[in-house]
Amino acid sequence: MDDCIFCKIIAREIPAEILFENEDALCILDINPIHFGHSLVIPKHHCRDFLEVKPSTLSGLMNAAHTVARATVEGLRLDGFNIFSNNGGIAGQSVFHFHLHITPRYQDDNIRFLLKLKKYRNGEMAEYGKKIRTFIHQNP
Amino acid sequence: MDDCIFCKIIAREIPAEILFENEDALCILDINPIHFGHSLVIPKHHCRDFLEVKPSTLSGLMNAAHTVARATVEGLRLDGFNIFSNNGGIAGQSVFHFHLHITPRYQDDNIRFLLKLKKYRNGEMAEYGKKIRTFIHQNP
Repeated sequence: MDDCIFCKIIAREIPAEILFENEDALCILDINPIHFGHSLVIPKHHCRDFLEVKPSTLSGLMNAAHTVARATVEGLRLDGFNIFSNNGGIAGQSVFHFHLHITPRYQDDNIRFLLKLKKYRNGEMAEYGKKIRTFIHQNP
Repeated sequence: MDDCIFCKIIAREIPAEILFENEDALCILDINPIHFGHSLVIPKHHCRDFLEVKPSTLSGLMNAAHTVARATVEGLRLDGFNIFSNNGGIAGQSVFHFHLHITPRYQDDNIRFLLKLKKYRNGEMAEYGKKIRTFIHQNP
């Protein structure tokens, strides 16, 4: 897409620190890392969010994530890592071309995702299960 | 694995609110949700973390995630969603059978992931890129 920074990186119109690529995905370092070595796995076709990723490219995309996560754990001797993607501006997405973050984690790195968890009351869980199952349509 | 709660759910030895399953994955509601409708996508084979997920099952796993994310967005009329996985205790993993979270997000839901981002100085980004690329070994 014309105004998409990730499409420009994929087309090599804008430079990036490229870690890996395959037919479906390009993996680069995030220029605003949580920790150095924080990377992004980006589908080569333009898609706004996870729902728009072509099912036929999910395998290549996740194989790229697998490859880069393993290399990051080994290369940087990580104690752990998070994988995440934000879908929608209110979920924290800032570049509207889907991307998966892989973030290095270290013992005592003071990163905490403190979230108040909710509790289902009687019957609520089944009710939510039903609401979601009603819209299950498996990928072709 | 004998003592794994997710293996027991997959074997139907422990009940769960099941949303979807395919050959490679089972999707259930998280009993400690960030928002109601927060789900987990779990590979059927036991694997401790993302690195241990069999490459041959990544496609089925992500197709299940795709299916459930779409149904959750439609069924609960979400404004957005996050996908994440914690790999390693220090990264927030509490059940040591890999799982991908899909969390509903709503406008003004007061969930913020405030993280202090780092800045690469001259040459550091290329240095980190090199450290990771050295360990890139593509999946067979």
